[in-house]
Amino acid sequence: MKLRELAEHLQCRLEGDGDLTIERVAGIEHAGPGDLTFIANPKYQGFLESTLASAVLVTPGPTRSEGGPALLVCERPYLAFAQALGLLVHASLPAPGIDSSSVVASDAELGDAVSIGANAVIGSRTRIGARSVVFPGAVIGPGAVIGSDCVIHARVSIRERVQLGNRVVVQDGAVIGSDGFGFVKQADGTHLKIPQHAAVVIEDDVEIGANTTIDRPAVGETRVRAGTKIDNLVQIAHGVTIGERVLFAAQVGIAGSTVVEDDVVLAGQVGVAGHLRIGKGVVATAQTGVPNSVDPGVMISGYPDIPNRDWLKSSAVFRNLPALKKRVVELEQRIAELEEKLAACRPPSET
Amino acid sequence: MKLRELAEHLQCRLEGDGDLTIERVAGIEHAGPGDLTFIANPKYQGFLESTLASAVLVTPGPTRSEGGPALLVCERPYLAFAQALGLLVHASLPAPGIDSSSVVASDAELGDAVSIGANAVIGSRTRIGARSVVFPGAVIGPGAVIGSDCVIHARVSIRERVQLGNRVVVQDGAVIGSDGFGFVKQADGTHLKIPQHAAVVIEDDVEIGANTTIDRPAVGETRVRAGTKIDNLVQIAHGVTIGERVLFAAQVGIAGSTVVEDDVVLAGQVGVAGHLRIGKGVVATAQTGVPNSVDPGVMISGYPDIPNRDWLKSSAVFRNLPALKKRVVELEQRIAELEEKLAACRPPSET
Amino acid sequence: MKLRELAEHLQCRLEGDGDLTIERVAGIEHAGPGDLTFIANPKYQGFLESTLASAVLVTPGPTRSEGGPALLVCERPYLAFAQALGLLVHASLPAPGIDSSSVVASDAELGDAVSIGANAVIGSRTRIGARSVVFPGAVIGPGAVIGSDCVIHARVSIRERVQLGNRVVVQDGAVIGSDGFGFVKQADGTHLKIPQHAAVVIEDDVEIGANTTIDRPAVGETRVRAGTKIDNLVQIAHGVTIGERVLFAAQVGIAGSTVVEDDVVLAGQVGVAGHLRIGKGVVATAQTGVPNSVDPGVMISGYPDIPNRDWLKSSAVFRNLPALKKRVVELEQRIAELEEKLAACRPPSET
Repeated sequence: MKLRELAEHLQCRLEGDGDLTIERVAGIEHAGPGDLTFIANPKYQGFLESTLASAVLVTPGPTRSEGGPALLVCERPYLAFAQALGLLVHASLPAPGIDSSSVVASDAELGDAVSIGANAVIGSRTRIGARSVVFPGAVIGPGAVIGSDCVIHARVSIRERVQLGNRVVVQDGAVIGSDGFGFVKQADGTHLKIPQHAAVVIEDDVEIGANTTIDRPAVGETRVRAGTKIDNLVQIAHGVTIGERVLFAAQVGIAGSTVVEDDVVLAGQVGVAGHLRIGKGVVATAQTGVPNSVDPGVMISGYPDIPNRDWLKSSAVFRNLPALKKRVVELEQRIAELEEKLAACRPPSET
Repeated sequence: MKLRELAEHLQCRLEGDGDLTIERVAGIEHAGPGDLTFIANPKYQGFLESTLASAVLVTPGPTRSEGGPALLVCERPYLAFAQALGLLVHASLPAPGIDSSSVVASDAELGDAVSIGANAVIGSRTRIGARSVVFPGAVIGPGAVIGSDCVIHARVSIRERVQLGNRVVVQDGAVIGSDGFGFVKQADGTHLKIPQHAAVVIEDDVEIGANTTIDRPAVGETRVRAGTKIDNLVQIAHGVTIGERVLFAAQVGIAGSTVVEDDVVLAGQVGVAGHLRIGKGVVATAQTGVPNSVDPGVMISGYPDIPNRDWLKSSAVFRNLPALKKRVVELEQRIAELEEKLAACRPPSET
Repeated sequence: MKLRELAEHLQCRLEGDGDLTIERVAGIEHAGPGDLTFIANPKYQGFLESTLASAVLVTPGPTRSEGGPALLVCERPYLAFAQALGLLVHASLPAPGIDSSSVVASDAELGDAVSIGANAVIGSRTRIGARSVVFPGAVIGPGAVIGSDCVIHARVSIRERVQLGNRVVVQDGAVIGSDGFGFVKQADGTHLKIPQHAAVVIEDDVEIGANTTIDRPAVGETRVRAGTKIDNLVQIAHGVTIGERVLFAAQVGIAGSTVVEDDVVLAGQVGVAGHLRIGKGVVATAQTGVPNSVDPGVMISGYPDIPNRDWLKSSAVFRNLPALKKRVVELEQRIAELEEKLAACRPPSET
């Protein structure tokens, strides 16, 4: 694609030769001739001199150096970079059609231009919307509903009666609708399984990572609202509700019946206990453990979680705890000496 | 089902109209006419006034209000609720039979009324007991033994020679019998794989969560004893022994050769180091890290784990560590001032 | 195998009857007649008296007791034990051949003596090297390259264009090449997916655990270098580079674009943030959280990580924080008393 054309698509101001051909996108350190790259973080500004890229997406500010790469100037270079990837890199989704090795129930309803991969299994009474792709080895349980333009990668399990909206992407090996971990202790100490047969709903534009698990509850529903993105190896327990536009990094775990409100961001390996409410826009840093509900808009860290600012300060003291303890011991000695000296010091009444 | 009939099944005392028809079960906040719900936690008592449910399972105490829902009174409403779910919700296990797309070794022994799903693979010399169900895409390795009334969900791997007891449930994508993580460092710094070909035994009534992994050891065995329930994304390393009626919440990890005794409860994301013994009835709160063996009956938290009560107190101080440090700094200043003053104060012998 | 023959293979000095037949290997506590076992850790030395094993691998030192087991003396008994397992235990890899139920693209290139299991799916333009084994239900995406002597266990996903070297072992359910978790926030708060179509390279002699996930980046590559061993349920994010001979225990998570240098060892549940460099030979104990780059050779613990020695000391103080706080409160009281007494004490100038 000509750089001029790309600039128009991305709505960027072009500084340099619009006739350059851009063939690929690349990171700033690895980019070469024919590549478009970007600088979103000022600390990478120095690479502008050394990069071999043909063009660089930048924020307003830097001026183009003679012989340097062409510049595409815009307010949000990273966003433009993501858009450029969409223009220049073409995903290789399988062609529509039903592979002869797949097993599709006779009463399944498949929309226009659906693609069903090799050895996929499509259960009875399922419905799959137009242009959705089911990769090889995926298993769609009876009565499951998948919207339009979904991508179900290889070896995903969509269990019975699970509902997916439109444009949902599920990475390989994820499981949606497995039995919630619900047992009740009986008088003899054994655990009676509580049947878990209620609803799981994944709304539009959700992405679910590889080998992530989302459980179904006994009653009510487990729900992930529109536009939420979930990374790999995440656990969403039964009866959980996740709001819109939420981001969960890898290995996050949410225990049963908790409500996570819109726009929450949980970094990697965060754990949230059950029956809580995590307020809109909460941000938790990696490995945070959340035993209680959290007010909207707070940034938290640590276990039990505390405000991030406090946690940073407490952590700084933690690493010097032995020194702090030593100072207390020294204080005790100095006070004991003072007490001894003062005892020897005549009170005024005695003079 | 008539409420009267349900009350008999659940051995509850009925207050209200026994002719009511109960069609579903539901949580107290979502229940409507025709629903049975429950109150196990006194803090939900207030919902008794507002619920639209036809009947509520309660402990002895509350009296039925005029026009309110019928009451089913019993000592353990949550247990009765679980039992009611079993009566009113009917799981849709696949019908017995062998799907023509499955690949079943000619020398596999299948019991009466076994169900083998589409594209499942049943290896050579396997034995599968009566009424067990293998869902689509599951792979049962050569020589594996599965008892009666087991449910092996879609895309589970049961590796070669693994043994499962009766009534074992394995959720989608779980792996039982993968190679233990055993390597030995050689003189040149590379890691030599220790072949991992020994036994894995899962006893009766165990449940294993989605995408959980249970490794096989080089020698000896990995064993999960009867009645233990394991949630999603849990890691059980090679040579581990898990006792009876143990509960592991999601994302727990147990390192190699550790013994977990009966009735232990580990909350989410707990990690236990290798070669330890976790005593009977130990409870660990979420994210606890256990580097040493734990005596029976203790409740632990933190990393390294300490008694939960101590951890709660230490955590409360942790969040105020900067203030504590400030107090120490102030003390140092005050003592320095005292020391100065006292130095100026004539000792008695000088007067 | 005769013990004499085994001693020669393992290059050990034999004390005892070389005509003994060794049939199995076993742990010291479970070994019986016909078994070879080992003592690598001095704390198990006591078992030398009680074991029923026919022979024991030991370091130089202990002398054989009359009627006790034969000894195989060498510098590294655990290494010899691993080698003995390779000699005595024979893995049951499937025979070469292509199962008729598998789906192999007509343009896939399969090397000599490759084994393709039941219901495996081999995509278009894939290349699989000589003697590699693909177990049942595995899905190899279009254009993927697998070297020689690899073992791809059941239900693994190797995504499109992923490259594996030689002798790579991938345990069941692992996913290599899933989309990286890359999104950019748009003006309306929604997250735009950054297409993730770049390279994933797994070099020679790497082992990847069950249900582990390794993501593909938008640009550049994700790479795991030769000889690295990764346990179960590990997350390797997009654009990460893992060095040679690295060991990751189960449930470790590495965020995007981080570089882990050679010979690093991360214990279970360790988390590492993105865009960092973890220096050669770093060791992190279990559950460590790493928010910043780490210099080579350091042993770290805690979150945020600090040197292990400091962490051990700080953790020891942590568990007694309430006592420390009490000491500070007592100091404050004693100082207040001293200040009061000293105020009453006449200054020298007044006398």
